[in-house]
Amino acid sequence: MSKTTILYQHGTLALLVPGLFRGTMRMGDLLTHGDTGIGTGEGLDGELLILDGTPYQVTSDGVVHVVDDEFLLPFASVHHAAFKPLMTVEDVSADDLEALILEQGHFANTFFAVTVKGTFTCMTTRAVARNMAPDATLASAAENQSQFVADHVSGTLLSYYSPELFNGAAVGGFHAHFLTEDQSMGGHVLQYDVEKADVAIQLFDTLEQHLPTSDPDFMAHDFSNDDVNGVIKKAE
Amino acid sequence: MSKTTILYQHGTLALLVPGLFRGTMRMGDLLTHGDTGIGTGEGLDGELLILDGTPYQVTSDGVVHVVDDEFLLPFASVHHAAFKPLMTVEDVSADDLEALILEQGHFANTFFAVTVKGTFTCMTTRAVARNMAPDATLASAAENQSQFVADHVSGTLLSYYSPELFNGAAVGGFHAHFLTEDQSMGGHVLQYDVEKADVAIQLFDTLEQHLPTSDPDFMAHDFSNDDVNGVIKKAE
Repeated sequence: MSKTTILYQHGTLALLVPGLFRGTMRMGDLLTHGDTGIGTGEGLDGELLILDGTPYQVTSDGVVHVVDDEFLLPFASVHHAAFKPLMTVEDVSADDLEALILEQGHFANTFFAVTVKGTFTCMTTRAVARNMAPDATLASAAENQSQFVADHVSGTLLSYYSPELFNGAAVGGFHAHFLTEDQSMGGHVLQYDVEKADVAIQLFDTLEQHLPTSDPDFMAHDFSNDDVNGVIKKAE
Repeated sequence: MSKTTILYQHGTLALLVPGLFRGTMRMGDLLTHGDTGIGTGEGLDGELLILDGTPYQVTSDGVVHVVDDEFLLPFASVHHAAFKPLMTVEDVSADDLEALILEQGHFANTFFAVTVKGTFTCMTTRAVARNMAPDATLASAAENQSQFVADHVSGTLLSYYSPELFNGAAVGGFHAHFLTEDQSMGGHVLQYDVEKADVAIQLFDTLEQHLPTSDPDFMAHDFSNDDVNGVIKKAE
């Protein structure tokens, strides 16, 4: 029995800030917690999007791969899909769509997921290049990323919303990844405009926050001097 | 099968700040997530300590009650006990003991629970009085509390430690409740000195954060103007 009111998160955004990029969970284990999700690979290796149980990785060369159960992740959010239709939208920007979603009900104080399926007049994504240098940080690694732009493209955008209270553990507000219908392009979503799309929503009442306690580097790190909120605002 | 690496939390400290004191979980339901824990009652009605599956409530008149399954809570932390002995200590203050615990290993980046069982040269606790006034806040309700002091007393202190990243959702650092061996005195711990006690620890790798999404007042509240960190620092 899968619980569809639980958002499972492995790792935190905060641990990426000082460069704790080691992959601390296997994709196979992550998928026991959900069939839908987003994440990144060891060393910030690309942008992950899990749809219907299939984990797609967009690497910094723009190629879309399906990764196997041994693929390692330092950070990911997954859940068991049970979306409910929310609305159909036409000709809206990303900002307007996010505002529209929050106007549909009192969702802002809990975690939820949204899918936006349809056609986009414009979609801009990015994918970070793998970086396991000992001195790498989220800010330095994010400098080596590729951006991709597609016009009039069909696909699925998956966005997780986290209450502002949990910014740092997660991304406060919306955090979206995208994949085209033909699986040729995707990544971490930077900007988009919807042409026409169906929006569906799934509310959670529980965040299951899993920490990589078996990683000695994570356990020994002194986070007190990391500017977690500042770096996240800049990088995400 | 109970998972002993999960800390289950219902509600957040942040929701208490603006006075969202409605009881949103039955004790009977809470106890399915653990046999050990701390919390408060509806309206901040006293201080709860759950030991070996028995939920004790210290009310503001200093009386210790055992509450039933219908007792309602706005906020609680529980887990299934599987403590491991850490050390025996003599003649230490609360501050020194907390520092000693953190020196035993790299625990500071994850959630853990500690029990301190033994005799205390001095123990100071408090219990807040129930307050369901519509305009009550954590700060105003906390003004109506009683303090209790006991010298040379035997009992059990249960403390939860949360990483600073989760301050606001939980109490960053240590948060302890106490009950004497004869169940005559207890509450939220303000200060203590250990005479001699056994310290045991249980590390978690998961925070299961449950939110009261069926409470319309919680879902509709605008937290953006609440000084969550400031009020928590003062009240806790």
